[in-house]
Amino acid sequence: MCFVEIVVLAGGTGGARFLRGVRAAAPEAGITVVVNTGDDVTMHGLRICPDLDTVMYTLGGGIDEERGWGRAGESWTVKAELAAYDADPSWFGLGDRDLATHLIRTRMLDAGYPLSAVTTALAERWQPGVTLLPMSDQRVETHVVVPDPDTGRQRAIHFQEWWVRLRAAPDPSAFVQVGVDAALPGPGVTEAFAAADAVLLAPSNPVVSIGTILGVPGIRAALLGSPARIVGISPIVGGAVVRGMADRCLPALGIEVSAEGVGRHYGARSDGGLLDTWLVAPDDAADVGGVDVRRVPLLMNSPEATANLARAALDAAGV
Amino acid sequence: MCFVEIVVLAGGTGGARFLRGVRAAAPEAGITVVVNTGDDVTMHGLRICPDLDTVMYTLGGGIDEERGWGRAGESWTVKAELAAYDADPSWFGLGDRDLATHLIRTRMLDAGYPLSAVTTALAERWQPGVTLLPMSDQRVETHVVVPDPDTGRQRAIHFQEWWVRLRAAPDPSAFVQVGVDAALPGPGVTEAFAAADAVLLAPSNPVVSIGTILGVPGIRAALLGSPARIVGISPIVGGAVVRGMADRCLPALGIEVSAEGVGRHYGARSDGGLLDTWLVAPDDAADVGGVDVRRVPLLMNSPEATANLARAALDAAGV
Repeated sequence: MCFVEIVVLAGGTGGARFLRGVRAAAPEAGITVVVNTGDDVTMHGLRICPDLDTVMYTLGGGIDEERGWGRAGESWTVKAELAAYDADPSWFGLGDRDLATHLIRTRMLDAGYPLSAVTTALAERWQPGVTLLPMSDQRVETHVVVPDPDTGRQRAIHFQEWWVRLRAAPDPSAFVQVGVDAALPGPGVTEAFAAADAVLLAPSNPVVSIGTILGVPGIRAALLGSPARIVGISPIVGGAVVRGMADRCLPALGIEVSAEGVGRHYGARSDGGLLDTWLVAPDDAADVGGVDVRRVPLLMNSPEATANLARAALDAAGV
Repeated sequence: MCFVEIVVLAGGTGGARFLRGVRAAAPEAGITVVVNTGDDVTMHGLRICPDLDTVMYTLGGGIDEERGWGRAGESWTVKAELAAYDADPSWFGLGDRDLATHLIRTRMLDAGYPLSAVTTALAERWQPGVTLLPMSDQRVETHVVVPDPDTGRQRAIHFQEWWVRLRAAPDPSAFVQVGVDAALPGPGVTEAFAAADAVLLAPSNPVVSIGTILGVPGIRAALLGSPARIVGISPIVGGAVVRGMADRCLPALGIEVSAEGVGRHYGARSDGGLLDTWLVAPDDAADVGGVDVRRVPLLMNSPEATANLARAALDAAGV
């Protein structure tokens, strides 16, 4: 039997929803997801991998659909108790159900298992129907350079602190991948690109999700070495983010908040960039030299719409 | 102002209840509790100190009164989630509220704080009205030697596994304090004995609570060097344990399950033992040579009865 192999680069909520569409559009395909781990953080001694968990819960049927992250039917007892002890930080959404995942992950990491093995073990329960690969087994954490509210001096804070605690309010001047120099692509990542029939860039944040994955030494080269066509899906529709806060991230890199801006940032594969094809919304104009720009409905507001979008992406990839 | 200083040796539930009586009987006194940490265990990467927490929650108003351990209004979400991952062990009662305590303790221990400092930090929230001292900052764990159900061969298992998972069913042939050779009395323990006006042995398990504390090198000598009278309260009433499973532990040491048996095990201070006074129930006979044996109601079935028992113990100590 000849399977089609699809590789998707993804962050959290948007990427996870897109993946449901890919799974629906290509039920017989092998789907491998290279997931951003730059949002990972250690809190209260627990190692938390927001994007890996969001993808795992979403595809495994455990996600809170309304919020787009964390577990359905979640309770917050431990969080309230930690607050009663005045234990910092209190601003992170640490749910009781979710916490069991972090406990197991932390224990396995402490025992010496790499994150990729931990991810496989956790996915045993959730059966997401895709192969989940952390972008790297090494710890790479996105920090955000923002002005200190008191002194005005630039300082780097963890992405989660900027994103969750500060609601991405202070203008970032830069994003730093702490630990990236010592990072390698996670086990299976470069092999997946080499064996891929299609590579899709999910409509995730181009800076702190897709950009972070591509920042791991070796991943960009492996991606460009893939025999598959590379198809990107714009996270920007009508000049605005569909969800998330990419509009707070793009300007720090001098990228215009538009489908065209992000497309040009990714660039044409024929010209040293990434894209063979760039999918933008029907009403969006995008002139990206050397890239096959296609207009398709991008809003993932129903399972059918999401599967149609994925189908369009796979069509563009020729599979 | 001249305070009376009372030092109590205690295990979990019975000791904690007795301490409420001591606090009620001597509201102006300084009360220091030396708590057994031999039941401590690491599960799911969390450091759990059952006796310290039981005393802290009981005196701080957070205990589940019915069970006698864990938090009132407890929920079990994390435990159920861990079981859904097939994460061992599943038999330990790890409550959501309780778990926050373990998270903070584990994080502080990992950061290098000794257990005594962690205990003080946690007690900041609970304000138990007593000074809580772990018997030792070193890790000392009680293991129980029991026959393997399959091979019949003797093997040592953690106390919690015997107590909770096996409901103390297999007959123990011995109790082993793993790590005790390298243990020192916790900070403040020997000083507390030296400054005490009364030393009370709570009606806790004589083997795995009081016995474990006394097994820490230096504690027995410090206790015997105290200028205070030492008053013990029998955990055995009418030949049976009031609560807990001391009757499963005493035979392993050849101790008769009776007030007299335990009294003789502790022994007369004048004869190299511990006791100046031994409190037994009104209907119990106990002939312990060299010890002032007194008959007083021992059942702690109301706050008044508990305070009266504590008052009788303090009277016997001469304070």
